[in-house]
Amino acid sequence: MTRFPKPIEELIDRFGMLPGVGPKTAERFVFSLLKRSREDRQQLSQAIEAIDGQLTTCSVCRNYTEADPCVICADPRRERNVICVVANEQDLLAVESTREHHGLYHILGGVLSPADGITPDELTVRELQQRIRQERPDEIILAFDPTIEGESTILYLTRLLDRSGARLTRLARGLPPGSELHYADEVTLSDALKGRRDIAPSAVPSRKPAAGHG
Amino acid sequence: MTRFPKPIEELIDRFGMLPGVGPKTAERFVFSLLKRSREDRQQLSQAIEAIDGQLTTCSVCRNYTEADPCVICADPRRERNVICVVANEQDLLAVESTREHHGLYHILGGVLSPADGITPDELTVRELQQRIRQERPDEIILAFDPTIEGESTILYLTRLLDRSGARLTRLARGLPPGSELHYADEVTLSDALKGRRDIAPSAVPSRKPAAGHG
Repeated sequence: MTRFPKPIEELIDRFGMLPGVGPKTAERFVFSLLKRSREDRQQLSQAIEAIDGQLTTCSVCRNYTEADPCVICADPRRERNVICVVANEQDLLAVESTREHHGLYHILGGVLSPADGITPDELTVRELQQRIRQERPDEIILAFDPTIEGESTILYLTRLLDRSGARLTRLARGLPPGSELHYADEVTLSDALKGRRDIAPSAVPSRKPAAGHG
Repeated sequence: MTRFPKPIEELIDRFGMLPGVGPKTAERFVFSLLKRSREDRQQLSQAIEAIDGQLTTCSVCRNYTEADPCVICADPRRERNVICVVANEQDLLAVESTREHHGLYHILGGVLSPADGITPDELTVRELQQRIRQERPDEIILAFDPTIEGESTILYLTRLLDRSGARLTRLARGLPPGSELHYADEVTLSDALKGRRDIAPSAVPSRKPAAGHG
């Protein structure tokens, strides 16, 4: 049975290792690449190779970086007494994009999932413990997905770091902005109720004169 | 604003040139590759480079090939008096997989589409003409999609090759196997009616001797 020439078959196979890419999609990728310029193909293969040539892991936070320590760990303006623990680099970026966290990070490399064979040994738990012993942060933010695996990871780390002397915090749960109350599921609404906050005095009109003007 | 390290950003950009791959999918591809072995990444980049190093175009039929002429054109068992003209390599493979065509191929490189700027000059029309003058085939099968572009291409090539002395044929249109008659659209059903064929005499018990095609 005639198939495509070997280099095409080979590349279809290789593209197939990307997540969500089946044989038909891989075939589409290959024929689309074939229609492009040789330069375009070279730039793609070189960009893949640059991953190994130019990218390393920050020895402090375990984030991908070009220079060790990474730009965040090396930044003197970052608050060094707050460490935000995240599962992966994409979560780090999500937290970073809020501009609300001015401290450091620690990338755990995933979340605990015994079913998938992900135990503390697969993660950078030991490195986190060592770092906390050395750096003695005031606060450790455990920023994980509100999933069973995320919650187990929070529980595990809370027990492990209980006597570290740091304040352990987690992300607030509640109603996402823009949502409608009557469409919220009961778990979300229940979380929002349990986590209710005092309305800041400055937010409500008051007769008292405003303090600190000028 | 902190983003990913440059090599990651670069590869996200490059993956974005693949069809149907937006920034989020490209990001998923890159982080999935990062989780794989260095060897896996090398095999991917090398497979991309092999396209330019090991792949060329058959000087006879214009199909991608490792050796010129390609395995089909070089095969002495193929019938050299029937040439099947297809838009691209994937269509060639589709025809080939039927095992019904034992002749040669010619890859046109696309179909006529004035709206997309695809004129005969963009396709291998000249090469086809030259080949037909030299090889003088008995039959030329114009195997194109039953779309407006495919039909225009058939019409154009029919006029062009009218005096080549070859029998010009096109793929039958009708009901696809497994379909249900009452679900067929009217164009398909109309095509199936217009293209109706005599039932082969051997298939029905008959007293009369088999007659010629009506």
